[in-house]
Amino acid sequence: MQLSRNRIEALTDGVFAVAMTLLVLDIKVPELEPPLATAELPLKLLALWPKFLSYLISFVILGVYWVGHHIQLSFIRRADRPLLWINVLFLLWVALVPFSTALLSEYAKTRIAIAVYGANLIAIGLTLALHWWYATTEARHVDPDIHPHLVRGAMKRTLMAPVIYVIAIALSFVRAEISLILYALVPLLYILPGRIDIHWGARRHDKPIDQDEII
Amino acid sequence: MQLSRNRIEALTDGVFAVAMTLLVLDIKVPELEPPLATAELPLKLLALWPKFLSYLISFVILGVYWVGHHIQLSFIRRADRPLLWINVLFLLWVALVPFSTALLSEYAKTRIAIAVYGANLIAIGLTLALHWWYATTEARHVDPDIHPHLVRGAMKRTLMAPVIYVIAIALSFVRAEISLILYALVPLLYILPGRIDIHWGARRHDKPIDQDEII
Amino acid sequence: MQLSRNRIEALTDGVFAVAMTLLVLDIKVPELEPPLATAELPLKLLALWPKFLSYLISFVILGVYWVGHHIQLSFIRRADRPLLWINVLFLLWVALVPFSTALLSEYAKTRIAIAVYGANLIAIGLTLALHWWYATTEARHVDPDIHPHLVRGAMKRTLMAPVIYVIAIALSFVRAEISLILYALVPLLYILPGRIDIHWGARRHDKPIDQDEII
Amino acid sequence: MQLSRNRIEALTDGVFAVAMTLLVLDIKVPELEPPLATAELPLKLLALWPKFLSYLISFVILGVYWVGHHIQLSFIRRADRPLLWINVLFLLWVALVPFSTALLSEYAKTRIAIAVYGANLIAIGLTLALHWWYATTEARHVDPDIHPHLVRGAMKRTLMAPVIYVIAIALSFVRAEISLILYALVPLLYILPGRIDIHWGARRHDKPIDQDEII
Repeated sequence: MQLSRNRIEALTDGVFAVAMTLLVLDIKVPELEPPLATAELPLKLLALWPKFLSYLISFVILGVYWVGHHIQLSFIRRADRPLLWINVLFLLWVALVPFSTALLSEYAKTRIAIAVYGANLIAIGLTLALHWWYATTEARHVDPDIHPHLVRGAMKRTLMAPVIYVIAIALSFVRAEISLILYALVPLLYILPGRIDIHWGARRHDKPIDQDEII
Repeated sequence: MQLSRNRIEALTDGVFAVAMTLLVLDIKVPELEPPLATAELPLKLLALWPKFLSYLISFVILGVYWVGHHIQLSFIRRADRPLLWINVLFLLWVALVPFSTALLSEYAKTRIAIAVYGANLIAIGLTLALHWWYATTEARHVDPDIHPHLVRGAMKRTLMAPVIYVIAIALSFVRAEISLILYALVPLLYILPGRIDIHWGARRHDKPIDQDEII
Repeated sequence: MQLSRNRIEALTDGVFAVAMTLLVLDIKVPELEPPLATAELPLKLLALWPKFLSYLISFVILGVYWVGHHIQLSFIRRADRPLLWINVLFLLWVALVPFSTALLSEYAKTRIAIAVYGANLIAIGLTLALHWWYATTEARHVDPDIHPHLVRGAMKRTLMAPVIYVIAIALSFVRAEISLILYALVPLLYILPGRIDIHWGARRHDKPIDQDEII
Repeated sequence: MQLSRNRIEALTDGVFAVAMTLLVLDIKVPELEPPLATAELPLKLLALWPKFLSYLISFVILGVYWVGHHIQLSFIRRADRPLLWINVLFLLWVALVPFSTALLSEYAKTRIAIAVYGANLIAIGLTLALHWWYATTEARHVDPDIHPHLVRGAMKRTLMAPVIYVIAIALSFVRAEISLILYALVPLLYILPGRIDIHWGARRHDKPIDQDEII
C-alpha cells in the first residue's frame, strides 16, 4: 500500500483537532432573563463544573492518545490495507468522544453513562494496542531490529489505561465517585514521568526513542 | 496549474476530518429528568442504535472514499483547472454526508431517506470515477506508461459501489431493510481483501502500487 | 518575519475546510411525526431547495477563493507582519460565510440578507486584492522580475467578483431574483476557462504560471 | 521525545482553525415570521452587533496567539514530554475560547462574564509564557547562543497581554465598558508595529528573527 504515513497523520491530526474542539460545544452558555443575569450568572456558571471537568479530562485523554498514536507511527515504516483500516477504526472511536463526554457530564452519577464513557476509552486503547500488535508482529511494519523490550513495554503501557477503565466501570457498582476519580487519574499516568522514565533515563540519549516514550 | 497536489490533499484531509467528526453531532444525549435518569437511560441509549449504526456506516464509507481519493492522487503528477474543480465537487458531496446520514438515521424505513443517502454516496463515487477518467484519459495527468489494466481495474473498483447503491435504492421498493443491509455491506467490499488481492498478490512486491490498491 | 508560508497555508486550509463543512449544518433534517414521515418527507425535502442551493453556491465560491489565495501564495517568497494580518483578516471573512449563507437561505427574498451575503463576499474579495496589492507593490514579497501583465491581470481577475457583487446588491432594489442569479453565476466565471485562457493558452507550457491561473 | 515539531504544529493549526471557525456558530440567524422579515430583519441584524464584535475580537486575539505560538516553536529545536503537555494545555485553553466568547457576547455588561473571558485569555497567555520559560531556561530546547535580550523581550511581550487582562477585569468593578474597550485594544498592541519594531528595525535583515517578532 503506497498510502503514505503523511496522509494517515494528516487525517488523524484533523480528527483529533476537531474532536478536541467540539468538546467545548457541550458547555452551553446559561440562558437567563436580563434582570437576573448579574445576580444568578455566577451560580449558574459554577453549576457547570461537571461540564468543565469532563471537558478537561476528555481533552487531556485525547491528548494522551494523540501522542500515543503518533509515537507508534514514528516506528512504522510501511502501511498496508489492514493497518490503514485499524487506523480508521481508531479514529471512529476518537470521534465518538464528544458524545460520550456529553453523556457523562450530563449523567455523571449514572452507571450506564460511566460505562459508555469507559467503554469508548477502552475501545480507543484496545484499537491502539491492536495497531501496535499488528505492526510489530513478525516485525511486519517496523524495523526488524527493534528491541523486544520496547515492543512489549509499549504494549503494556498502551494496555494500562483499558485495564484501569475496566476496573473503574466495575467499581461504579460500589460508588460512581470512585469511577470518576479513576477516569480523572488515568491521564496523569501518561503525563507524569513514572518509574519507567527513571529506569530508562540513563540510556535516553543513546537510543532514539525509548520504551517510556510510547504513549 | 501550479496549485500543488499538497494543497489539494490538505483541503481534502481537512474536509474529511471535519465531516467524519461532525457525524457524531447527530447522536444526541437523551434528555431525562434527574429522578428518571438511572432507570430510563439504558433504554434510551439502546434506542439510539440507528444513530450509532448510521455513524458507523458513514464513518467507514468516508474512510473508503478518503483512501480511494488519496490513492488516485498518488498516481497524478500534475493538476489543471478542471481536475481541481472535480476535486471541489467531490468535497462538496463529501461534506453533505453528515446531513444525509442524519436523514437516514431519522427516517431509516422511509424510501426517500434511503434514496437521498444512496444518491449522496453515488454522487461521491461517480465524481471519484470522473476524477480518474479525466486524469487518465490520454494519460493527461498520469505517467504515460501506466498499465491499462490498472487504469481499468481502478475504474471498475470505483464504480462498483455506485452500482450497488443504485440496486439498493431500487430494492427499497421491495423492502427498506434490504437497502440498509446493502449500505452496510458496501464498505466491507473495500476493506476485506478480495479475489483481486489474491490475483495480484504474487506481483505485489515488484510493482509499487497494484490494481487492488485502488480504493 | 520567519513565520513560514507553510504555517499560513495550514491555518488557511484548516479554516476553509471547517467553513466549507459547517455550511451543511444549516441544512436541518425535517422533523415529522412517524405516521406522517412517509407521506410528507419528500415534500419537506423539496422545500429545502433554497438551503441546498445556498450550500452549493457558498461551497463553490469558497472553493474559488481557496484556489485564489493559494495561487497568490505560490508567488510570495516571504511574509512580514502586515501580510500575515491581511491573511488573518481574509480568514475572518471566510469563517463568516456559514453565517451569511444561513441568513441568505432563510431570507432569500429580503434585501438586507442579499446585501449582507454580498458584503461578506465583497470583503473576502477586497481583502484578497489587498493581499495581492501589498505583496506585489514594489515587488515587496514577490520575485522582482514578475511580469507586470501578470500582476495587473491577477488584480483585475480578483476584483471582477466584488464588482459584480456590488451590482448584484444594487439590483436587489429592482428584483431579488436578479441578485441571486448573479450570485450563482459568479463562480462560473472562475471555473469555466474564459477568453483569458485562450489568449494565454499558447504560452502555457513556457511560463510556469500564467495570468489566467490567478484565481 | 521523538515527536516532531511538525506533529505539534499540525494539531495546533487544526485546533486554532476549528476554534476560529466555531466562533461563528454563536452568531445565530434571527428567526422571524415571513410577513415581518422585510421590515424587522435589518433591526434584528443590527441588534447582533455585540455578537459580531465578540467574533471580531476573539478571532483576532486567536490570530495573535497562533502567531505567537508558531514563532516560539520556530526557535525550538527539540521537544520533550513536559513541553508537549504544555502545548496540550495551551490548546485546551484555546479550544475554550468559543465558549467564553459566547458568554461575553451574551452578558457583556456582567462582571462574571467579563472575568471568565479575561481569565481564559490570561490562561492562554500564561501557558504560552510557561512554554517559552520552559524551553529557554538553561537553553533546554533552544539554540544555546540565543541572545538573552531576545529571550527576555519575547517573555515581556508575551506577558503584556495577561497583565492588561488582569487590569481589565479589575476595572470591571468601576465600569464594564472600560474592560470591554481594553479587550478590544489588546490585539492592536500585537498587530501594529510598536516602539520595539523601530528599535530593532535597523538590525532586521542581519538577524533571522528579532525580538519584535515574538508574538
